[in-house]
Amino acid sequence: MSVASNPYAPSPLDLVSNVNNFQLIESTLREGEQFANAFFSTEKKIEIAKALDDFGVDYIELTSPVASEQSRTDCETICKLGLKAKILTHIRCHMDDAKVAVETGVDGVDVVIGTSQFLRQFSHGKDMNYISKSAVEVIEFVKSKGLEIRFSSEDSFRSDIVDLLNIYKTVSAIGVNRVGIADTVGCANPRQVYDLVRTLRSVVSCDIECHFHDDTGCAIGNAYSALEGGARLIDTSVLGIGERNGITPLGGFMARMIVAAPEYVKSKYKLHKLRDLENLIAEAVEVNVPFNNPITGFCAFTHKAGIHAKAILANPSTYEILNPHDFGMKRYIHFANRLTGWNAIKSRVEQLNLQLTDDQIKEVTTKIKKIGDVRQLGIDDVDGIIKEFHSDLQ
Amino acid sequence: MSVASNPYAPSPLDLVSNVNNFQLIESTLREGEQFANAFFSTEKKIEIAKALDDFGVDYIELTSPVASEQSRTDCETICKLGLKAKILTHIRCHMDDAKVAVETGVDGVDVVIGTSQFLRQFSHGKDMNYISKSAVEVIEFVKSKGLEIRFSSEDSFRSDIVDLLNIYKTVSAIGVNRVGIADTVGCANPRQVYDLVRTLRSVVSCDIECHFHDDTGCAIGNAYSALEGGARLIDTSVLGIGERNGITPLGGFMARMIVAAPEYVKSKYKLHKLRDLENLIAEAVEVNVPFNNPITGFCAFTHKAGIHAKAILANPSTYEILNPHDFGMKRYIHFANRLTGWNAIKSRVEQLNLQLTDDQIKEVTTKIKKIGDVRQLGIDDVDGIIKEFHSDLQ
Repeated sequence: MSVASNPYAPSPLDLVSNVNNFQLIESTLREGEQFANAFFSTEKKIEIAKALDDFGVDYIELTSPVASEQSRTDCETICKLGLKAKILTHIRCHMDDAKVAVETGVDGVDVVIGTSQFLRQFSHGKDMNYISKSAVEVIEFVKSKGLEIRFSSEDSFRSDIVDLLNIYKTVSAIGVNRVGIADTVGCANPRQVYDLVRTLRSVVSCDIECHFHDDTGCAIGNAYSALEGGARLIDTSVLGIGERNGITPLGGFMARMIVAAPEYVKSKYKLHKLRDLENLIAEAVEVNVPFNNPITGFCAFTHKAGIHAKAILANPSTYEILNPHDFGMKRYIHFANRLTGWNAIKSRVEQLNLQLTDDQIKEVTTKIKKIGDVRQLGIDDVDGIIKEFHSDLQ
Repeated sequence: MSVASNPYAPSPLDLVSNVNNFQLIESTLREGEQFANAFFSTEKKIEIAKALDDFGVDYIELTSPVASEQSRTDCETICKLGLKAKILTHIRCHMDDAKVAVETGVDGVDVVIGTSQFLRQFSHGKDMNYISKSAVEVIEFVKSKGLEIRFSSEDSFRSDIVDLLNIYKTVSAIGVNRVGIADTVGCANPRQVYDLVRTLRSVVSCDIECHFHDDTGCAIGNAYSALEGGARLIDTSVLGIGERNGITPLGGFMARMIVAAPEYVKSKYKLHKLRDLENLIAEAVEVNVPFNNPITGFCAFTHKAGIHAKAILANPSTYEILNPHDFGMKRYIHFANRLTGWNAIKSRVEQLNLQLTDDQIKEVTTKIKKIGDVRQLGIDDVDGIIKEFHSDLQ
């Protein structure tokens, strides 16, 4: 399917959209380290970094080298792996941190400072003048070392918009590579995001990166709206792990993006590696992949209602916007239940290699639905009923 | 906090917004029955219906009485429970189904028919003329029985917009109570949703209901954008259970809405019952509540990074948009890890009722971070280190 003929592609009217041209900043080894259960050994960090690189992410973001001695040496180790992805580390907007960061061997430094009234009052206690001065100092220092530099506000959606635009304009003018917007508490909604990014797009000349927490369930929708508004880079983590209930999950974001930009996504990312990548992280932080996870949840491609099964058997696109094969997954028609229909049973009869007429299939379907109405059915139960029905006919 | 002073409330410019005035159509007993693992006995359905009613949902939607004999009698049974919530059943747009539905005792009937080219070709095979005629016949019949009636298209976002608006205009003119938009395959994104709902709002005079599948992770963001565009009713299910990976989850949607309309949400829904409700469903369908579930996920209110812990201790709103107490949940500061800071440790020292100066706390924090850098720490480990440090001082 060409992009031009894809009805879910961004509108050609959206000139600022980067839906067809986005990049991933994968933060499992930074934001993900802030997940309650995360403790990554050096070996595990290397394994994760290599897996992310193999998947095709554009950037890998690592915990600040100032966080702990091991964090610093692990950062150096990962920089020496020779990965295709660029390596970033994430620091406070402070020269003490910046001086350590530039010596680690990273390709770029992400700096962040809280600009909301909340953070200015209860976290670092600095005013906008101080923030602006520190930003300029740190940015010029990192640039002088020949590294990429991103400046981000924290809690951007609870910051004064004039303060925000002022500082972004300042850092853009001195040649920062990217500015970042962060929904640190997960309060933003998609239209707000679109509006803020669109406004910012008209103020800065550099790329825009966005970071969305998922406290109110909008991290994927917000990321998509940000790209539509002109952001280019989205922060993700595998399974979304991070502070509290985390950020935009890599897998769910891939689901969103493949619908909008299929050729771009399929050419850039090894989607069939997604499941292994998620299993690697799930095991490392001792959680289960959620039952309803996009793409890899156990039921993501399971169709149950009779009316759905009928249409899916005729053409999978009727009830599927994602093709399971793109991700190395399989479709499953759930036929062993009271909501089943004769088309689903017919498909099972064919799988069992039995010969029944449509009328016979309808008869055995009625039988199956009746039993499924009083108790839970397994596949073996249904197969047994079909086989018995078939042998009674002989 | 009054609505007027809430910066996350809908803009007063949004005259069509129903963010402060939405209703819930809870579909755990209809969409949820289509979840791969769902088999609800009559007793379980009654228990779920009562729990939903107690939570405060406006409508409870039940599986079609035509789906199976037990579905029909269960529908009758639930109608006789005398719940405050209105009871709906969900049927195909066909007189055969409608005649059965109106005899069950429900307060209203939700009819649905596929309008997309996909469904018209591979599911029911009918054209728009036929759809329109059936719709009018069914609506007038259900209205003649004094029941509420909703007409919904299926797969609305892949339907021709002119076809859609035509049929919605027709059914609005004959007095349907609600029209429904359904993203049956989960392909829609928030701005598309807003635009379609906003357009529809100008075409019909009745309420608009929306139903969003979560295949691409936007079901909550889409629901919110729909309300902003003028929809009034949102379909949810507990934990989002439904076909494939399901629909807008009740809990995540509550998280989204309490941020935007706190007074309305808190006055209407018993939020502290959410966890029990989710546990009831999780047990019934044999899944775990996802680790990253909004509100009730085990880490939803856990703060880990030292910089976060410091600010949270000074004022929880710095890194929380949701108040855990609103949901009968608790905040947790994770202090046993390499990213910890001395403010988090200080808070723990106070919990342990030990006397240490700030300098002493900083010293023991360095010790804890060093050990946390080489191995995973438990709370007991950290408490042990603190107590040993404290007793060494004596």
